[in-house]
Amino acid sequence: MAPERVEGHMLRALQEAQAAAERGEVPVGAVVAGPDGQLLAAAGNRTRELSDPTAHAEMLVIRRACALLGSERLINCDLYVTLEPCPMCAAAISFARIRRLYYGASDPKSGGVEQGPRVFNQPTCHHAPELYPGIGEPEAAAILKAFFAGRR
Amino acid sequence: MAPERVEGHMLRALQEAQAAAERGEVPVGAVVAGPDGQLLAAAGNRTRELSDPTAHAEMLVIRRACALLGSERLINCDLYVTLEPCPMCAAAISFARIRRLYYGASDPKSGGVEQGPRVFNQPTCHHAPELYPGIGEPEAAAILKAFFAGRR
Repeated sequence: MAPERVEGHMLRALQEAQAAAERGEVPVGAVVAGPDGQLLAAAGNRTRELSDPTAHAEMLVIRRACALLGSERLINCDLYVTLEPCPMCAAAISFARIRRLYYGASDPKSGGVEQGPRVFNQPTCHHAPELYPGIGEPEAAAILKAFFAGRR
Repeated sequence: MAPERVEGHMLRALQEAQAAAERGEVPVGAVVAGPDGQLLAAAGNRTRELSDPTAHAEMLVIRRACALLGSERLINCDLYVTLEPCPMCAAAISFARIRRLYYGASDPKSGGVEQGPRVFNQPTCHHAPELYPGIGEPEAAAILKAFFAGRR
């Protein structure tokens, strides 16, 4: 993927994270891009608004992109998210057959990719995306930090 | 929970699994029971029908029960499912704060509780339910076996 395209999608994911913060949600945003790099779906976290513990940004964009394509697999699609996915989202990314996963900040407390369950590194994981961590990391970390500072 | 109540909920989950098989879905069924043991929600797997890789039985019952209670947490609620949850569903069960998890057959290939990511055993897991594996196991295994035999 061309670097300016990656940057554009991560910028959009960061905007979704900021919008989530403004709704009082934990600020995480995500984008699914199609095989030719065009934006398919964008979403921010909506667990509080929807009273739905599964409504993480990644789950919402995967569900939206799948509905759009009429398929439970997003072959050759890429996912951009501002924070390291949790184990729920990492498993959904695997089920959807996401090709490349770009993410911003690591999540030592609740992440499921680099820590804890390391979902993609298990023999029970039947598809792992290519990983591109640390994309837009300073911006993603700043949005999260401002949000949690404001809640204290 | 009284044994006959546990049996009744697992029987309902098995019926949901059977109904899923008849729709051509991988036959897994689930039930959420409220704090006093009454049935709150029941669902079977619908990933194919909904073109949604996240539409596992456990996710659908959690989302339905949360919508019913207007809360992203199912405090003192119990979940019954015919198969060991995958890591996606195990993490969602943790986020929803499910009190007790009753399940049937183990899933060596894709499970996330006893194998692979062992989601509830990680320091990144902030709530683990009490586990009751092997409930209704022969029936759950028979439904799965018949389904996969029929597809060959």
